[in-house]
Amino acid sequence: MAPSKAVVAHLVVLLVPCLLSVLPFSSLALTQDLCVANMLLPDTPSGYPCKPKGLVSSDDFYSDALARPGPVIAPFNTSLASAAVKQLPGLNGLGIAATRVDVQPGGVVPMHNHPEASELIFLLEGTLFAGFISAETNKAYVKSLKKGDLYVFPQGLLHFQFNTGNTTATAIAAYSNQNPGLQIAVYALFGNTLTVETVNKTTFVTKEEVMRLKDLFGQSSVPS
Amino acid sequence: MAPSKAVVAHLVVLLVPCLLSVLPFSSLALTQDLCVANMLLPDTPSGYPCKPKGLVSSDDFYSDALARPGPVIAPFNTSLASAAVKQLPGLNGLGIAATRVDVQPGGVVPMHNHPEASELIFLLEGTLFAGFISAETNKAYVKSLKKGDLYVFPQGLLHFQFNTGNTTATAIAAYSNQNPGLQIAVYALFGNTLTVETVNKTTFVTKEEVMRLKDLFGQSSVPS
Amino acid sequence: MAPSKAVVAHLVVLLVPCLLSVLPFSSLALTQDLCVANMLLPDTPSGYPCKPKGLVSSDDFYSDALARPGPVIAPFNTSLASAAVKQLPGLNGLGIAATRVDVQPGGVVPMHNHPEASELIFLLEGTLFAGFISAETNKAYVKSLKKGDLYVFPQGLLHFQFNTGNTTATAIAAYSNQNPGLQIAVYALFGNTLTVETVNKTTFVTKEEVMRLKDLFGQSSVPS
Amino acid sequence: MAPSKAVVAHLVVLLVPCLLSVLPFSSLALTQDLCVANMLLPDTPSGYPCKPKGLVSSDDFYSDALARPGPVIAPFNTSLASAAVKQLPGLNGLGIAATRVDVQPGGVVPMHNHPEASELIFLLEGTLFAGFISAETNKAYVKSLKKGDLYVFPQGLLHFQFNTGNTTATAIAAYSNQNPGLQIAVYALFGNTLTVETVNKTTFVTKEEVMRLKDLFGQSSVPS
Amino acid sequence: MAPSKAVVAHLVVLLVPCLLSVLPFSSLALTQDLCVANMLLPDTPSGYPCKPKGLVSSDDFYSDALARPGPVIAPFNTSLASAAVKQLPGLNGLGIAATRVDVQPGGVVPMHNHPEASELIFLLEGTLFAGFISAETNKAYVKSLKKGDLYVFPQGLLHFQFNTGNTTATAIAAYSNQNPGLQIAVYALFGNTLTVETVNKTTFVTKEEVMRLKDLFGQSSVPS
Amino acid sequence: MAPSKAVVAHLVVLLVPCLLSVLPFSSLALTQDLCVANMLLPDTPSGYPCKPKGLVSSDDFYSDALARPGPVIAPFNTSLASAAVKQLPGLNGLGIAATRVDVQPGGVVPMHNHPEASELIFLLEGTLFAGFISAETNKAYVKSLKKGDLYVFPQGLLHFQFNTGNTTATAIAAYSNQNPGLQIAVYALFGNTLTVETVNKTTFVTKEEVMRLKDLFGQSSVPS
Repeated sequence: MAPSKAVVAHLVVLLVPCLLSVLPFSSLALTQDLCVANMLLPDTPSGYPCKPKGLVSSDDFYSDALARPGPVIAPFNTSLASAAVKQLPGLNGLGIAATRVDVQPGGVVPMHNHPEASELIFLLEGTLFAGFISAETNKAYVKSLKKGDLYVFPQGLLHFQFNTGNTTATAIAAYSNQNPGLQIAVYALFGNTLTVETVNKTTFVTKEEVMRLKDLFGQSSVPS
Repeated sequence: MAPSKAVVAHLVVLLVPCLLSVLPFSSLALTQDLCVANMLLPDTPSGYPCKPKGLVSSDDFYSDALARPGPVIAPFNTSLASAAVKQLPGLNGLGIAATRVDVQPGGVVPMHNHPEASELIFLLEGTLFAGFISAETNKAYVKSLKKGDLYVFPQGLLHFQFNTGNTTATAIAAYSNQNPGLQIAVYALFGNTLTVETVNKTTFVTKEEVMRLKDLFGQSSVPS
Repeated sequence: MAPSKAVVAHLVVLLVPCLLSVLPFSSLALTQDLCVANMLLPDTPSGYPCKPKGLVSSDDFYSDALARPGPVIAPFNTSLASAAVKQLPGLNGLGIAATRVDVQPGGVVPMHNHPEASELIFLLEGTLFAGFISAETNKAYVKSLKKGDLYVFPQGLLHFQFNTGNTTATAIAAYSNQNPGLQIAVYALFGNTLTVETVNKTTFVTKEEVMRLKDLFGQSSVPS
Repeated sequence: MAPSKAVVAHLVVLLVPCLLSVLPFSSLALTQDLCVANMLLPDTPSGYPCKPKGLVSSDDFYSDALARPGPVIAPFNTSLASAAVKQLPGLNGLGIAATRVDVQPGGVVPMHNHPEASELIFLLEGTLFAGFISAETNKAYVKSLKKGDLYVFPQGLLHFQFNTGNTTATAIAAYSNQNPGLQIAVYALFGNTLTVETVNKTTFVTKEEVMRLKDLFGQSSVPS
Repeated sequence: MAPSKAVVAHLVVLLVPCLLSVLPFSSLALTQDLCVANMLLPDTPSGYPCKPKGLVSSDDFYSDALARPGPVIAPFNTSLASAAVKQLPGLNGLGIAATRVDVQPGGVVPMHNHPEASELIFLLEGTLFAGFISAETNKAYVKSLKKGDLYVFPQGLLHFQFNTGNTTATAIAAYSNQNPGLQIAVYALFGNTLTVETVNKTTFVTKEEVMRLKDLFGQSSVPS
Repeated sequence: MAPSKAVVAHLVVLLVPCLLSVLPFSSLALTQDLCVANMLLPDTPSGYPCKPKGLVSSDDFYSDALARPGPVIAPFNTSLASAAVKQLPGLNGLGIAATRVDVQPGGVVPMHNHPEASELIFLLEGTLFAGFISAETNKAYVKSLKKGDLYVFPQGLLHFQFNTGNTTATAIAAYSNQNPGLQIAVYALFGNTLTVETVNKTTFVTKEEVMRLKDLFGQSSVPS
C-alpha cells in the first residue's frame, strides 16, 4: 500500500524537517559519480585526479571547441579541432572524446592511427574517401562517404580520409577514449628526431625522399 | 646502413618470389585486429563472436542510418536513429556507438540514462536545453546549447534535452560502448509491466497520475 | 631431490643469518598488493591514491557500519547504512562494496539505479518484493523474497524493493564497485534543482504532481 | 512548455495506436542490458554466451542456494554453499557472486585465495578470527569479528577464518567476480596429483608430513 | 586448537570415505580458472571460447615455437617466430604473448606498432639499436641495447630495432595481450591494396618512390 | 591528386614558417601516450601518477636489471631479479613486467602465485620441471622444459619450477601486469606473523613442522 496523498502531505509536515536535519538526501550518495579533471595535478594511467565537487560547474561538461574549424595544417589542407580531456575536463574517466576535421578541396587527413582508441566518423558536409588497413591481411577497407554517412576505424590501425569533392568536407569523429592519441605515420616516420640514415633503414624509403620529407615536416636540421 | 636503391631492386628480383612462396607478408599478423559481429550467433558479455574474416567487407564498417531522422516517437515529438552494434556490426568490441536525435519544436528527449555508457552530444542544428542530475548531490548541471556545441553526460546518470527554439534541433550523440543501452525514466517507471499499486509504491507518484501515465505509455491493460 | 630435514636444518644455521642481512624475504615482493584509500588526497577515476604501507592496519579492512540499521529515510520508512570506499578504505581498487537496508513494514526502497555497479541482494530477515526493469523490453523481472534468498540487479537498471510483511525486512546488498553510486529515480527526477516546468517537460508528470513531489523531497523553494 | 494534461490525453487518442504500430517503445532499446548465462554453450574469457531473451525469466536472477548451510567439508568442520554464475546464471557478465560459510565450533576455513576476485565478508552469527597475508611484507592483517562485522580480503592474497566461539559462525561472502575461483592452499599443495618428492621439493614440508597430508586430503594413491 | 595428528588420522578413517562420496574436494571449485582456446569456434572480443576441461592437457600451456628462429623475412634480414594465442592456446584470456626476433647483421625490424599491446623486449644475444616515437611530441626515445638489456615500447606507438653488430641479434619480446597484432608501417603504407595515387596522397611520398616500394612489398599489380 | 614534388617544395617555402609559428605539429597530439611513473608521488589503483613529460628520457624505458642473476635466496638455491614498475618506471600503466630466475642445480622456485598477473616463462639455459595446480580440479599441469621452451601459468594459480639438471637453469618470466605481486606459499603460510597455533589451525600442518618451517623462514621469535 503506498501512502495516500493526504498521508504523504502529513508526513511532509512532520518528517521532512527532521529528515533534513538528520539525513539530508545527499547523504544517500555512496560515491563518485563525476570526476572532472583537475589538470593542476599530474595525470595517472586512468586519468586526472578529480576536481573538488564544490568547484565543478556545468561549464566543465561543455565545449564549443568544435563549433568552428581548427587551425589549418598547411601541407594537408585540413583543419583539426579537438575536444579531448584537456579541452573538455568533464570527459575525465569517461572513455569518450571528439574532434572536428575540415578537409579543403584537395586536402587530406594522411595515414595515421590512434594508439589508444577506436574512431567513429560522421560526415557533416561534402564527400570523403576513407579507409583503413587491416594489420592481419594488409587489405584496405575503403568507402566513399557522403553527408550523413558513418565509418568505423578499429583501434590502433592506420587509416586516412581525403576530400573527393569541390567543397570543404566537414566531419565529426568520436573516440573510445578520453585521450585517443594521434600518430600521423608520415610525420612520425619522417618528421621525428632520428637521423636520415635511421629513417631510411627502418622505412626502406630512399635517403633522398627521406630528406625531402624531413624538409617538408620541419626537421631538416637533424644531422644525417 | 640501409640497402641502396640498386641493391634493394636487385633483392626484389632475387628474393620476392621466394618470399612470396615461403612467407607471405600476411603471415606477419599475430592476431585479431577486427571482430565484426556475427549476429547469427549469441552475444557474449564482451560482444558478439567474430564473423569469418573472408566474409568481412567495407560495408560492415559503414552505415547511413544517421543520414536521416529516425521514426518519430509521438509523445516526445522527437525522432531517434541508432548506430549501435546491431545496426553497424563493425563496432563489435570497439567500445563506441552513435545515435541521431531530431527534436521538433516543443519536443523533448525525456529524462533517461544509458546503463552501460557515457555520452558526448554535438548539436548540428537548432537549440537545445540539456542537463543531467548528479547522483551524489542531486544538483542539475544544465546548459543552453546552440549549433556546434558539445555537452557530456556521465555514465548511468539521468539526463535530458528539449528544444527551446522554433526549428527542429538535430544532434549526434556518441557513446562509450558498442551497446549503450537506454532507459527512459518515465517509460521505465510507468510503461512497465508492474501494477499501478507497485508503481505508486515505488515512485510516490499518485495512483491517478500513474494510471494517466500508464495510458500514455501504452500499458493500460495491466491490472492494478 | 628436496633437501632432507637435517640438511635444511643445517642450511638454517649457515644461511639464514646471511639471508636476512642480504635478502630479506620482503624483497621478494614485486609490487602493490594493497592500496588502502588515502582520502586526504583527491580521488582518481580508478580510486584514491594509496595510503603509505607503514600506516596501514587491520582496521583499514574492517567495518561495523552494517552491524546496525542506518538512519531512517522518512518518506521511505527505510534505513540505509553503507560500507563503500569512504566508510571502508581497504575496498579501494578492489571493485566491491556493501550496504544494509532495513525496510519497515509498509516501507520501500523506491525505484533507483547504481550508475557504476551491479547488485546482489541477500535477505537476512523478513520478506521483500523485489524487481528490476529491463531497458530493452521494459519488462519487470520481479520476485517475492524470503529469508536466505538472493536476487540480482544488473548494472544501471532501475530496480526496487518493498516490504510485504509485518516485520522489518533486513537485507545486505553487495556491489561490483567500490563506489556503486545511487540515483533514486523519484528523488533525482523531482527533488533536483530544476524548475517545475522543466521537470514536467522532461517527465510528462503533471505540474501539480511535480509540485507535490518537490515538496515531499524538499525542493519546494525552487522557482517555477 | 510541457503538454497539458488535456493535450496529452488527446495525443494518446490520436497517436498511441499509430505509435504502437510504427514504433513499439521496445525499439528504443539500443542494446544488451542483460546477458543471462547459457550454460549449454562453452564459456568465454568474459563469461558465457547469453541465453535468448525470450527464455529469460525472473528465476534466472534468483537463488536460494545460500538459505541453508552447504555440505560439510569434514576435516574443516565447515560448510560451504555457493552462488556463482553456475548456480545463479543471471550473474553472467556482472562481476559479482556470493557464498555462505558455516563454521562449526573448532572449525576453520583454511588458508586459501581467490585467483580472480577480492572478497568482502559479513558475519551473520557467531565469532570468527579472520586475516590475510600481505604478499609484499608477509604481515598478517587479522581481526576478531563478531555479528554484523565486515572484513576485506584483497584479490589473490592468502586468507583464512576460524571459529573462536562455542556456536556455529555463519558468514556471507561477496566477490568482485562472477567466477571468483577458490584455491585452498593446503589442499592445492598436498592434495594434488604431484608426487611426494615434488611436493616436498616445492614446499619444504617434510616427506612424512606431506604423506600425512596427502592421506588427509585423499591422494594417498599417488606414487612417490 | 588444531586437530592433533592422532585425531586427524582418526578423522581420515572415519570421514574421508564419507567426504569423498558426498563432497569431492573438486566441488569446492567455484569457477573457471583456465580457458584454453577452442579454435574450432569463432573468436570473440575477449578471446576464444574455452575448450572443454576434459580435453585440456599440459601441452596446451607449452610451446617450443621460440626455440629456433622463425622464417626469414627477406627484405628485412630478420626472422620472426610467434607465440600468441593461435600458437599457444593456453594464453587465451590471459593478456600475455611472446615473439622471438633474430636480426641478422645489417638486418632491421622496421617501424611498426602493435594496435592492441605494449611490448617489453629482452636482448638474448648481440646488439640492437631500438627506439619508439612519441605520438605527443614526435620525439624518438632511442637506446643501444646489448645482451641482457630490456626496453619498453608503449601501446600503439611506432617503434623499430636494427642490428648494429656483426653477429645475429636475438631478442624475446613479451606483449600485454594474447593477441598483440602487428602493423609494419612501410608494409601497411606501401604494400596494401590501395592505388599508387591514394598512397601518394595519404603519405606525401612521391609516386615514383611509392611504386618502388610497392614493387618491393609485392603489390606491383595494383593499378594506379 | 597528391601535391607534386615541386608544389610541395613550394608549399614548404611558403607555408612551413607560418605553420611552425601558428601550429607546431606537436599540437596535433590529443593526449597522453606515455605515463612514466613518478615514484615520488603515491601509487593509485591504476599505477603511479605520470612524471612530467619534460623530465622523461630514454632511460625511463630501459633496464639492465635482468642482465645478471639477482641475489641468491638461500633455502631455494635460486636467484631472482625483477623488472617491474619500481625498477623500470616506463612500464607504468602498460600492463607488463618481467623477472629473471636462475635456479642452481638442486634449486627450486617453490609453490607461489602472482595475485595480479598471469605468467609466461621462457627458458634460456638448462632444464626445469614446471607446473601449476588447477583451482577447479586440483590437477597439476606439469612439463619438463628445456632451452627455448615456453610455459604458461594462469593468473592467481599456485605454480612452481625446479632444476632437473646439473647446470644452472635460467629463465625469463613475463607478466600481464606492471605489478604482478608474488606470494610464495610456504613463506606466506609459515614465515608470516601469525602464531604457531594459528598456522597449524589454518594449514593442518603439525605444530612441530610449523615450528621447523617458521625457523627456516626466519619468524622463530613469534610467540605460539
